[in-house]
Amino acid sequence: MAMVCLSDFEAYAKKYLPKIAWDYFAAGADDGTTRDENILAYKRVRFRPRMLRDVSVMDIRTKILGSEISFPVGIAPTGFHQLAWPDGEKSTARAARAMNTCYIASTYSTCTLEEISAAAPGGLRWFQLYIHRNRAASQQLVQRAEALGFQGLVLTADLPYTGKRRDDVRNGFRLPPHMKVKNLERVFEVCKMSLLDPSVTWNDIYWLRSLTHLPIIIKGILTREDAELAVRHGVQAIIVSNHGGRQLDEGPATIDALAEVVEAVQGRVEVYVDGGIRKGSDVLKALALGAKCVFIGRPALWGLAYKGEEGLRDVLRILQDEFRLSMALAG
Amino acid sequence: MAMVCLSDFEAYAKKYLPKIAWDYFAAGADDGTTRDENILAYKRVRFRPRMLRDVSVMDIRTKILGSEISFPVGIAPTGFHQLAWPDGEKSTARAARAMNTCYIASTYSTCTLEEISAAAPGGLRWFQLYIHRNRAASQQLVQRAEALGFQGLVLTADLPYTGKRRDDVRNGFRLPPHMKVKNLERVFEVCKMSLLDPSVTWNDIYWLRSLTHLPIIIKGILTREDAELAVRHGVQAIIVSNHGGRQLDEGPATIDALAEVVEAVQGRVEVYVDGGIRKGSDVLKALALGAKCVFIGRPALWGLAYKGEEGLRDVLRILQDEFRLSMALAG
Amino acid sequence: MAMVCLSDFEAYAKKYLPKIAWDYFAAGADDGTTRDENILAYKRVRFRPRMLRDVSVMDIRTKILGSEISFPVGIAPTGFHQLAWPDGEKSTARAARAMNTCYIASTYSTCTLEEISAAAPGGLRWFQLYIHRNRAASQQLVQRAEALGFQGLVLTADLPYTGKRRDDVRNGFRLPPHMKVKNLERVFEVCKMSLLDPSVTWNDIYWLRSLTHLPIIIKGILTREDAELAVRHGVQAIIVSNHGGRQLDEGPATIDALAEVVEAVQGRVEVYVDGGIRKGSDVLKALALGAKCVFIGRPALWGLAYKGEEGLRDVLRILQDEFRLSMALAG
Amino acid sequence: MAMVCLSDFEAYAKKYLPKIAWDYFAAGADDGTTRDENILAYKRVRFRPRMLRDVSVMDIRTKILGSEISFPVGIAPTGFHQLAWPDGEKSTARAARAMNTCYIASTYSTCTLEEISAAAPGGLRWFQLYIHRNRAASQQLVQRAEALGFQGLVLTADLPYTGKRRDDVRNGFRLPPHMKVKNLERVFEVCKMSLLDPSVTWNDIYWLRSLTHLPIIIKGILTREDAELAVRHGVQAIIVSNHGGRQLDEGPATIDALAEVVEAVQGRVEVYVDGGIRKGSDVLKALALGAKCVFIGRPALWGLAYKGEEGLRDVLRILQDEFRLSMALAG
Repeated sequence: MAMVCLSDFEAYAKKYLPKIAWDYFAAGADDGTTRDENILAYKRVRFRPRMLRDVSVMDIRTKILGSEISFPVGIAPTGFHQLAWPDGEKSTARAARAMNTCYIASTYSTCTLEEISAAAPGGLRWFQLYIHRNRAASQQLVQRAEALGFQGLVLTADLPYTGKRRDDVRNGFRLPPHMKVKNLERVFEVCKMSLLDPSVTWNDIYWLRSLTHLPIIIKGILTREDAELAVRHGVQAIIVSNHGGRQLDEGPATIDALAEVVEAVQGRVEVYVDGGIRKGSDVLKALALGAKCVFIGRPALWGLAYKGEEGLRDVLRILQDEFRLSMALAG
Repeated sequence: MAMVCLSDFEAYAKKYLPKIAWDYFAAGADDGTTRDENILAYKRVRFRPRMLRDVSVMDIRTKILGSEISFPVGIAPTGFHQLAWPDGEKSTARAARAMNTCYIASTYSTCTLEEISAAAPGGLRWFQLYIHRNRAASQQLVQRAEALGFQGLVLTADLPYTGKRRDDVRNGFRLPPHMKVKNLERVFEVCKMSLLDPSVTWNDIYWLRSLTHLPIIIKGILTREDAELAVRHGVQAIIVSNHGGRQLDEGPATIDALAEVVEAVQGRVEVYVDGGIRKGSDVLKALALGAKCVFIGRPALWGLAYKGEEGLRDVLRILQDEFRLSMALAG
Repeated sequence: MAMVCLSDFEAYAKKYLPKIAWDYFAAGADDGTTRDENILAYKRVRFRPRMLRDVSVMDIRTKILGSEISFPVGIAPTGFHQLAWPDGEKSTARAARAMNTCYIASTYSTCTLEEISAAAPGGLRWFQLYIHRNRAASQQLVQRAEALGFQGLVLTADLPYTGKRRDDVRNGFRLPPHMKVKNLERVFEVCKMSLLDPSVTWNDIYWLRSLTHLPIIIKGILTREDAELAVRHGVQAIIVSNHGGRQLDEGPATIDALAEVVEAVQGRVEVYVDGGIRKGSDVLKALALGAKCVFIGRPALWGLAYKGEEGLRDVLRILQDEFRLSMALAG
Repeated sequence: MAMVCLSDFEAYAKKYLPKIAWDYFAAGADDGTTRDENILAYKRVRFRPRMLRDVSVMDIRTKILGSEISFPVGIAPTGFHQLAWPDGEKSTARAARAMNTCYIASTYSTCTLEEISAAAPGGLRWFQLYIHRNRAASQQLVQRAEALGFQGLVLTADLPYTGKRRDDVRNGFRLPPHMKVKNLERVFEVCKMSLLDPSVTWNDIYWLRSLTHLPIIIKGILTREDAELAVRHGVQAIIVSNHGGRQLDEGPATIDALAEVVEAVQGRVEVYVDGGIRKGSDVLKALALGAKCVFIGRPALWGLAYKGEEGLRDVLRILQDEFRLSMALAG
C-alpha cells in the first residue's frame, strides 16, 4: 500500500489499531460536528492562484517564539502515544527532531518528560499543561519541564471538564494496565479528570507566570474577546484550537476562528492553529489567514501507528512536500 | 447496549416498539420536512465558546410561572403513552416528579387525570387542552384538572384539524382495543378528531379565562404576529411549537421561530420551545436564544419505551448532564 | 397498496407502465436538473402559519377566465394519454368533469378533439396548440376546437424544437403502431416535430387572434420581459411553465419564476403555473405567490396509469383534501 | 450502447481504457475538488429563457484570432493521446479538421508536430508550449511549429511543477515503452517534469515574442490581476483554465473565474475557457459570460478512446447539436 497522502495513514490506523484506541483518537464530542467541520471549513477556503512568478527557490522555514523550524508544521499535544506505537512519545520526539520541528508534549503522555528529553536531546519541545486542583503538582510539572530544556509552556484552556465522547463511554475507555500517565505518577493517582480544576480563570496566568521563565502559549482560544484577554494577561502566543472537536461540539471550526483571532491580536503575539490540517494546502491557507505555524494532532498519531518514528517522519515529509508545491502553484 | 445519548433510546424504541406505535410517534406531516428541520436547525446554531471562566459551581435550576424545576427541561404533551409502556402516563408523571421537573399531561392520555395525579402526588403538572365542539366537555376537563392540582393550562392552538401523517393513514392507525382516551370517556366517544372545534379563535381565550384561575399557556405559536396576539389576549406564557412537525409541513423550525417570538413579546410573558431537542447543548442554545425552558416530546416516549419511569429518568438525567457540561465548556 | 399521496401513484406508474412509456413521461431535458428543481424549489418556500383563526368553513372554489372550478387545480396539456390508459384522453376528460375542473387537451392527444368532447359533454376544456409550418393545419385545429365548445386556446411558446430527452433517444421512442396523433391525422403525417414552425414570433399572436373568439392563454413564460410582451400582445392569461423541465435544462423552477411574472403583469391578466406540484401545500404556496390556479402534468398521467378516470379522480381528490387541510393549518 | 451525450463516452472510456490510462486522464490534484467544481459550477449558472423569437435560422460559426471555426468549441491541449487510441494525436487532428475547428496540440504529444501536420493538412492548429530550463529546446519547438503552419502559440502558465495527482503516484504512472514524447525526443530525455523551468516570469513573454510571429495565447489565468498582466505583456488571447483541476486544488472553477477575467480585459484580447464543459448548454453559458470560444479536454480523450477520429467527431457533433438546440430554446 503506497502512502501518498495523510488519508492513507488514517486508513491504515483505522485498520490496524485496536478499536478502543482508534475510537479514542478519532472521537469528537457529541455528534462529532465540530471535529468534522474543522476539515470541511478548510475546503470552503479557496485560493486565487497567481501565475508566472519565479518559484524556483522557496524558503519554507519559519520561526516560532524565536526558534527556527524547517517548515511551519509542529506536533500538537495529544495523549497516550503508546496506544499508537510501543515506544510512544519517545518516537514522536525523535521524529520531530529529525524533521527539525517543534513537538508539544502532553501532560497525558505515556512516557515521562525525562524519557522524552533523553530520547531526542536537543529537539525543540514545548510542554502542555492542565492546571490541577493540586496546584503543587502543576507547579512541579512546570519546573521539571523547564529544567529539562522544554522551551515553552502550553496552557490548555478548553478543558475544565472532559467533553462527552460517546464511543469512549460505550467502550469504557481506559489505558491498558501496562501503560501509565507517567508524568503524574509520582504526584497522585492518574486518569481521573476530576483532578483538573474547573475554577481556573485568567488570573491563573499570573500564577503560572510566577513559576517559570518559559514563554506561555495559551491553547483553546476561539473568539476575539478571549484573544484580547489572552494578550492582556501577558501570554506570548495563542493556539486557536477546539481540541480537535473533542470538547464543546458545534462551536466554530478553527480555520474560521483564526481570522477573528488574528484580527484581534494585531500582531501583538504569535498566533497558531490546530485542527483539520490534512494537506499541505491547508497549511498554506492557515498561513494566508494569519497563522505563524500550524500543529497537527491526529495525523501525527496515524503516522506513529503506521511505523513509529519513521511513520511520523513520512507524515511530516508529505505535508512538507505538499506545502512547498502548493506555495509554488499558488504563486 | 449502553444508553449514552438520546439517539440510543430512539434506536431502542424503533427496534422494540410495534411498528404501528413507532410510526405514530415518529410521524411528521406530509414529507416530514418540518419534523426533520426542527433538528437540523439546531445544528445551524453555533456557539462562541469562552474560556477560563470559573465553572466549578453551576446552578441549573430555573422557575417556570413561579415554580422551581431542577433544570430547564420539561415533558411536552404527547398522547397515548400506553403505546410506549404499560403504565403509560403514570410512569411519565413519576419520572417527572423524581427529576423535579414539569410534566404537561395531554388530553389524549391513556390514563385519567385522576390516575396521573394519584401516581405522583405533589409533582408539578400542567394540563394540555384542545377545545371541543362540545364546550361543556372542555369546561369539565379544565375544572377537573384544576381541582386535581394541575398548575397550568396549556391550550394547543395548531390543531383545528389533524395533520396528514401518511404512515398513520397507511397503517390505519387506531388505539388497540384495551387502551382508551380515558379523559374523554365519560364525555363522548373518543378518537374522532372531528370533535375538535375548528372555529376556535383568539376570543376563546377569554372564555377559557372565565373557567379557571390557572395560568394559560398557549402552544403552537410560530410568528411574531401571533405572539403579539397571545400577549394581548392575556396568556401567561407561550410555547413555540410546530407540534413536532405533525401539523402543517414546511413551516419554520421551532428554534428559528423562537428568536422572532422572543423579540415580539419583549419579556411580557415567558416563552418556551419544543421540537428537535436531542442534546443538552440544544437546551443551552434555546436558552441563549431567549427560551425560559424547553420541552421534550419524542425523547420522553423513547425513554418510556426503554424502561418506563426508569427509562424516562435516564433520558432526563442524560440531558441534564449534557446541559451542565455544555454550559461549563461554553463558559 | 394504499394510495395516500401523489408519490404512491408515481411509484405505481413506474412499476406498471412499460419502460418506454414511463421514460417518456418522466423525461427531463439533458440532466433533468430543471425537472427536479421544479420540485425542490417548492420545498424552499416556507409557510408562516397563523393560529386560532376560524377555519370551520372554507371555500376553495375559484374562477379561471370566468369559469368556476371546484378548486384551483387543473389538468395541464400532456401528450399520448393512451400510453398510460387504453381510453386515453377520454378518461382524462371524464375525470376532470367529474371533479369539476379544467382540462387542457394537447395537440398531441391520442384521441381526437371530437372524441374528447363526446366523452364528457359539458366539461370545461381548453385546447393546447403548437403552430405548424403549415398554418392552414393550425387554423383548422383552432376552429375545430372552438366549434366543439373548447373555451380557451393555450399556445405553447417554449417548443420551437423538441428538447433533448436522453432516454427517449436511447429508447428510440415512438408511438406503438396502434396509437395515433389523431388530431393531425387528416392534415399530415404525424410525430415529426420538424413540422413545428421555429420562426414563430410574438406577432403570430395577432394571427391567432384573427382566427378565433376564444381567449388566448400563453404557456411557457419564465421572465418578466416575456410576461410584459405577452400582455402587450393581448393574451388573456399566462401559464408560467418550463414544460416540466423537458425543454431547456437549467432554467428557473416555475415557482421561482412565478413571483417575477406576477409582479410584471400587475393583475392585467390571470397567471397560472405548472410543474412540480406534488402536494396540496404546493398549491397553496403557488396561490400565495400570486397564481390564480395551478395545473398538474405528470401526476395526472400517474393517476391514469393507476386506474384511468377513477385513478385521476383519486389524484385530484387527494390534492383537494390536502389543499383544504393546508389552508386550515396555515390559518 | 447508444452514445447520446458526453457522459456516455466517459462511461465507455472508464470501462475500456486500461486503469492506469483512465486514472491519468481523470486525475485531479489532491482531493479532486477543483476538477469536480469545474462541472458543478456550470450547474449553478442558470438561464433566463426567452420565448417566441424566430430561431429558424441560427449561425453558430465564430472566429478565433481571425480564423473561422464551425462552432465555438475547440480541442484543449492534453498529453499522450496514444494512451486513448493507437493513432494518437493524428486522429485528433483529423477529427478537428473534419469538424472545422481548432486543435491545440500539446508539447506532450505522442506524435511529432510533423506527424500531426501531415495527418490533417490545412487544419487550424495551435501549439501548446511549456518553457524548459533548456531554452534552446523551447525555441526549437516554437520554430518547428511555426514552420509547420501552426497558427498560434499557447503558453501554459500554471505548471511550474506538476500537481500532485494521487492515483498517478499510486500507479507509478509512466508511458508504456512503445510510446514516446516524440516532440522532445531529439532534444533531451523526456517525461521528467523537472525539465520545466519554475523560474519563468512575465518577462519571458517578451522572450517568446522575440522568437516567433505567431500570436501568443496564455493558458492558466484565473484572476483579474493576472489577466491585466497578460494584456500588458502583449498576449493576443487568454485561456481561463485551471488545467482541468490537475494543478492547484481548491482554486476557483473556471466558469466562475471567467467573468472576472472578462471584466478585467475589457475586450482588449480574446478570452476563452476550458474545464468542465460537458453539454452544449455549458458552451452557451460560457459565451453568455463573455468567452469567445471554449476548449474541451477530457471529453476529447473519451471520444478518441471510443473510436479514434470517428469517436471524437461524434463528441464534437453532439456538442454542436446540443449547443444549437440550447441557443434556440434560450431564445
